[in-house]
Amino acid sequence: MTTVGILGGGQLARMMALSAAPLGLRFLVMDTVADACAGQFAPLIVGDWRDEAALSEFASKVDVVTFDFENVPAESAQWLAERVPVFPSPRALAVAQDRLAEKTLFCELGIPVPPFAAVDSREGLEQAVATIGTPCILKTRRLGYDGKGQFRLRSDADIGAAWDALGAQAPKVGLILEGFVAFERELSVVAVRGRDGEFRPWSLTENWHVDGVLSASLAPARVEPELQAAAFRHARQLAKALDYVGVFALELFCRNGELLANELAPRVHNSGHWSIEGAETSQFQNHLRAVLGLPLGDTRNLGHACMLNWIGEMPDAGAVLGEAGGHWHDYGKSPRAGRKVGHATLRSDSQAELADALVRVGAALGREAQVAPVVERLRGR
Amino acid sequence: MTTVGILGGGQLARMMALSAAPLGLRFLVMDTVADACAGQFAPLIVGDWRDEAALSEFASKVDVVTFDFENVPAESAQWLAERVPVFPSPRALAVAQDRLAEKTLFCELGIPVPPFAAVDSREGLEQAVATIGTPCILKTRRLGYDGKGQFRLRSDADIGAAWDALGAQAPKVGLILEGFVAFERELSVVAVRGRDGEFRPWSLTENWHVDGVLSASLAPARVEPELQAAAFRHARQLAKALDYVGVFALELFCRNGELLANELAPRVHNSGHWSIEGAETSQFQNHLRAVLGLPLGDTRNLGHACMLNWIGEMPDAGAVLGEAGGHWHDYGKSPRAGRKVGHATLRSDSQAELADALVRVGAALGREAQVAPVVERLRGR
Ligand SMILES: Nc1ncnc2c1ncn2[C@@H]1O[C@H](COP(=O)(O)OP(=O)(O)OP(=O)(O)O)[C@@H](O)[C@H]1O
Ligand SMILES: Nc1ncnc2c1ncn2[C@@H]1O[C@H](COP(=O)(O)OP(=O)(O)OP(=O)(O)O)[C@@H](O)[C@H]1O
Repeated sequence: MTTVGILGGGQLARMMALSAAPLGLRFLVMDTVADACAGQFAPLIVGDWRDEAALSEFASKVDVVTFDFENVPAESAQWLAERVPVFPSPRALAVAQDRLAEKTLFCELGIPVPPFAAVDSREGLEQAVATIGTPCILKTRRLGYDGKGQFRLRSDADIGAAWDALGAQAPKVGLILEGFVAFERELSVVAVRGRDGEFRPWSLTENWHVDGVLSASLAPARVEPELQAAAFRHARQLAKALDYVGVFALELFCRNGELLANELAPRVHNSGHWSIEGAETSQFQNHLRAVLGLPLGDTRNLGHACMLNWIGEMPDAGAVLGEAGGHWHDYGKSPRAGRKVGHATLRSDSQAELADALVRVGAALGREAQVAPVVERLRGR
Repeated sequence: MTTVGILGGGQLARMMALSAAPLGLRFLVMDTVADACAGQFAPLIVGDWRDEAALSEFASKVDVVTFDFENVPAESAQWLAERVPVFPSPRALAVAQDRLAEKTLFCELGIPVPPFAAVDSREGLEQAVATIGTPCILKTRRLGYDGKGQFRLRSDADIGAAWDALGAQAPKVGLILEGFVAFERELSVVAVRGRDGEFRPWSLTENWHVDGVLSASLAPARVEPELQAAAFRHARQLAKALDYVGVFALELFCRNGELLANELAPRVHNSGHWSIEGAETSQFQNHLRAVLGLPLGDTRNLGHACMLNWIGEMPDAGAVLGEAGGHWHDYGKSPRAGRKVGHATLRSDSQAELADALVRVGAALGREAQVAPVVERLRGR
């Protein structure tokens, strides 16, 4: 029996194990904390990412390794790759871990991006702001997630505050300045690429963020077919360039009907959670199919789905469970401000029904603001 | 966090844990063997069903108890029910454990059954055969499963052999003689009943058995709406009479367009496995929703689904995984003759496509005979 090692034991590892267990797999999860929620359904090794004894025990017990967490140190991934197959490859991981390397690759491939510049010093920041203009965003190149490690500059007057906030991190993780995109929409392509190069995207997904954290996703996104085709082209090209194996997400801004690439997440992605109930094959199962070299599952959507993220604490489950297409996902975590603790997916055969269900759930939970933009999109035009 | 105790750690417990984990549950499984396959995804207590120390440890660690295995001794279920809520109730379990009690209840409720008679002795068997006629089947009243504990009598000449085969078990588990039904079809209602009495059936399912073991299921069954309605009426009535909580299956024969009840399985059922991908809510998740008093999920089917059972050993996964609606379920068991080791579900939006997929899979696996009756049904009329 094949044992899959997963680096990182959060909800992504947990949902991978639950969704791909039927392939006859066993799992071993490694995390830095003992209460990692995937540990409720798979054996867990606790250790630091650079702890060679822990990595070595992990490597000796698994047949293949993948990630729930993309910020595993590149050297640890490399160390493992010398001992056991690792998918996606440490190289793909290294590119996706670094916003500068990632954006440089997008450019090389002709995928449009917002203006950007590397920043090493306070003077460098001033120059970059002068070139790119305001508004803009200063970000750490590495180790950012959920909008953490970001500072928005409205005008030159914010340069000092931005440097005070992130300057100290420049030597360690690097900084990048990006032009602020006044986008109409945020979209993502979640796609899977097999060991043999087969590429399958799920329906393009529209996403809404609150305070830099994903709040809601709608799939399929209501966009022109040409826009979806362009997004798929970018994703396919990127995956090919990286010889990527597994599921990834390409996050895109849409401004004036044009796509600009924001970032590549080298793993199953929050904006693909709807695929558990809303697609023939979920991103989680397909990720493992790809990693194991099995035939990829069909990614077609089953009707329309909206995912609502639960941040900080779980709301009452009743309203969602009471909906015909209501599905609940409690990650088994203890509540904590800003923490992703669960999500719900509402699935429906029609957009109109989905909008109605969202309105009912939003009202029942006092979360009208969370569902409003999705409802507006579904009812628009 | 709620911990659900499951008595029995086979594939049903395993699929319950995988499917209902998203409700934010933890599981504790109890089984008599240490390598019970649910133990790969949930903590496992190993102990005999009558081992009070093990039961007591189990009871102290769980908030509610349910079953993967209906032949847990009634006294053990009762012992637990005095300490922690148990669903379905020991009473419902006791009725379903005993083919005589079960058939008697069917009769009381006006649900048609094949002729039957209790058998205590060799003379009793002769009398029963004289009354019921041949062909007929002698069965143990209790502890039978997958056609085990059954002997078919073609004529009076088989009475001796039947008694030799099962007579010794008469004092311990009781015997029952049933008229052999020359059925056109076997059907099952898989349904869920909530703590509040809400009743929801999945689409009526047609089943094919080989050597007394389920081989294939098709849902929705291709029957007249009136037949499905009658089957649902029987199931609802039965569940109400037992104040049943959770998922159960009512197995039915259809002869000359009339339904005859065969048996009640007081648990999630092999003929409901298709609901994992083929229905909005799976039997496994809905069983736990019912047991926990949560709102029941929608049971409507998503297109057409056929489940193929894998007995003895797993075939190669490639052919099924290569189908657009192909889903694989390997229970993580070691191969053994006659053992249920896994299943596949093929799902499709149309009956014609499903038939084509079955033909391809049957040919690829050299299992033409297994898929043939389903294909014939799908293409029939
Ligand atoms: N250049 C930009 N212009 C406008 N908005 C931006 C820009 N960069 C980031 N944002 C906003 O902040 C959100 C999070 O940014 P980004 O994806 O770079 O961060 P992250 O920490 O990697 O987040 P995640 O973990 O969700 O991918 C974006 O989805 C978008 O809403
Ligand atoms: N009275 C009968 N007439 C005709 N066939 C029968 C009869 N009883 C049983 N069978 C055949 O044997 C199969 C298994 O019988 P039954 O359901 O009683 O046994 P079981 O051991 O409880 O099986 P399972 O665990 O699959 O429910 C039935 O599905 C049917 O195909």
